[in-house]
Amino acid sequence: MSDRVPILRIGENLLVSIQIDLDDQTVMNLQEDLAAQVVKYGARGVVIDITAAEIVDSFVGRMLSTIASVSRLLDAETVVVGMRPAVAITLVELGLSLGGVRTALNLEQGLAILAKRASAGAAGR
Amino acid sequence: MSDRVPILRIGENLLVSIQIDLDDQTVMNLQEDLAAQVVKYGARGVVIDITAAEIVDSFVGRMLSTIASVSRLLDAETVVVGMRPAVAITLVELGLSLGGVRTALNLEQGLAILAKRASAGAAGR
Repeated sequence: MSDRVPILRIGENLLVSIQIDLDDQTVMNLQEDLAAQVVKYGARGVVIDITAAEIVDSFVGRMLSTIASVSRLLDAETVVVGMRPAVAITLVELGLSLGGVRTALNLEQGLAILAKRASAGAAGR
Repeated sequence: MSDRVPILRIGENLLVSIQIDLDDQTVMNLQEDLAAQVVKYGARGVVIDITAAEIVDSFVGRMLSTIASVSRLLDAETVVVGMRPAVAITLVELGLSLGGVRTALNLEQGLAILAKRASAGAAGR
């Protein structure tokens, strides 16, 4: 049986911390769980913390892109935080520049980006 | 004979609720009817509610993109509301990220987005 990656709620945002090695089924489960929770809670943002990921291959890179695209379709923004320098280099070498994905140095800054966007949206209402 | 999808007016916006299985002719009719009504009523926004759509294939995905592009050319913004998590995942897997299409969780939020834009536009005039 595959592991499931836990998804935490912080206010209007969902937080996923990637800590285990991800096999295909775990990634599929994560994508489905995340999409379901974005809709269920009307989440405005998704933070994916990859601090614990020493290695990010093209499989995980594509997962990050897919999660960002799915979340955008569900009206939530994705921020990837905690990327190691070596991981960034690997992703670019793999040709995965994560076009539509916002990044931030750490969790605090990631949440700040989402809060800023939320208040900008609210101010205009 | 093909069905026609009803188009409702709510203030400055048009609302389409996708509830039936769409064949090619119905989609063509909908695109034409919608474009005609956007011009006729000077609509500022188009809301497409796909809550009732359990499955969205590439055909319907492309329709959403086309309607958004046509409406934009006629100076109306399109918001797709009520997308199910599974539908969002399918669209991304099909490579249809609906680039130019704004999404919202439900009809209320979709109308709020259009109202916000309308007031922002009015303030800037």
